[in-house]
Amino acid sequence: MPLAKQYERIIMGIDPGTNVMGYAMLGVNGKRPELIVMGVIKLSKFESHYLRLSRIYERVSGLIKEFLPDELAIEAPFFGKNVQSMLKLGRAQGVAIAAAIARDIPIAEYAPLTIKQSVTGSGSADKQRVATMLKHLLSIPDEKMPHLFDATDALGAAVTHFYESAKPAQLKKGASSWEAFLKQHPDRVAPRRQKPE
Amino acid sequence: MPLAKQYERIIMGIDPGTNVMGYAMLGVNGKRPELIVMGVIKLSKFESHYLRLSRIYERVSGLIKEFLPDELAIEAPFFGKNVQSMLKLGRAQGVAIAAAIARDIPIAEYAPLTIKQSVTGSGSADKQRVATMLKHLLSIPDEKMPHLFDATDALGAAVTHFYESAKPAQLKKGASSWEAFLKQHPDRVAPRRQKPE
Repeated sequence: MPLAKQYERIIMGIDPGTNVMGYAMLGVNGKRPELIVMGVIKLSKFESHYLRLSRIYERVSGLIKEFLPDELAIEAPFFGKNVQSMLKLGRAQGVAIAAAIARDIPIAEYAPLTIKQSVTGSGSADKQRVATMLKHLLSIPDEKMPHLFDATDALGAAVTHFYESAKPAQLKKGASSWEAFLKQHPDRVAPRRQKPE
Repeated sequence: MPLAKQYERIIMGIDPGTNVMGYAMLGVNGKRPELIVMGVIKLSKFESHYLRLSRIYERVSGLIKEFLPDELAIEAPFFGKNVQSMLKLGRAQGVAIAAAIARDIPIAEYAPLTIKQSVTGSGSADKQRVATMLKHLLSIPDEKMPHLFDATDALGAAVTHFYESAKPAQLKKGASSWEAFLKQHPDRVAPRRQKPE
């Protein structure tokens, strides 16, 4: 059975960077999320900025083609760096975003603080604690835990999106309309009378 | 006859921004560059950052599909803004770059100063002077001159790339190998002896 058919929904998580880009695929059936795969795209071996961007586009496109995610959750940036590195980071993110846009995949963005809070319950948790909590939450065996936090951070973004999209729409940031609520929770609404044709 | 076949080479120029993105297509036959089209993609009407990025990707992809440019020249950024706007600008650029990467189109980047110098002979020229010079250089009729400098800036990037790629490779920034020179100027090299099989 194709992987995409084993899950009601697949959420792709990305932690975009210019040296390493973390990714994860989270499969969801009902209320049960499950890790499908996580890993990193190493970019530091490419000297040229454009080679890195090409690599990001190819790999992210390839992952989307392979796993057919329904949504993309990305870790939003913090603004601590200088303008030149922010521009480079923006380009790396833009290229990854374009790979999703090219396949009409909706994108949600979460701040690092939101991800920490969502996964561990504390905004001050470090990356190790986020990783440990994800391991526990999704029953990930030791041998599947990655060595780099970029991968677990990406998984954290996917898990946060899973939680956030399960919340009633009016509680979510950015989605405040009743329309959006109806769209996301057709089961909670009494059947509507059909409109006259 | 399809447009792409009327020219030996088509250079696309882009001046990427988050509110307005300028674009231009320069057709080249031999040493004669010719304006095919220039214009702007207006983004300020879209409130959402993601809608803007989608729009950029769709329009740039569409232009590439329509005109089949051989190369893309983009105006490189200046680093005068704050980190948040640089990240947004980077994303906008990344999305446009991805549209070119998706079609294996090589990308060259030129600083605003290089473009001004290349088009007008002076690095301190203002946008109006760049536009006037381009009008003269390419014999663009009044009615085809755009109201926004984003379009002429994009054309300036394309024209700069045309000049730069006509220079011997060893004089160019970033392309210093003899191999590259040979590749770009097969006509300037005496026929090589064939290698023994």
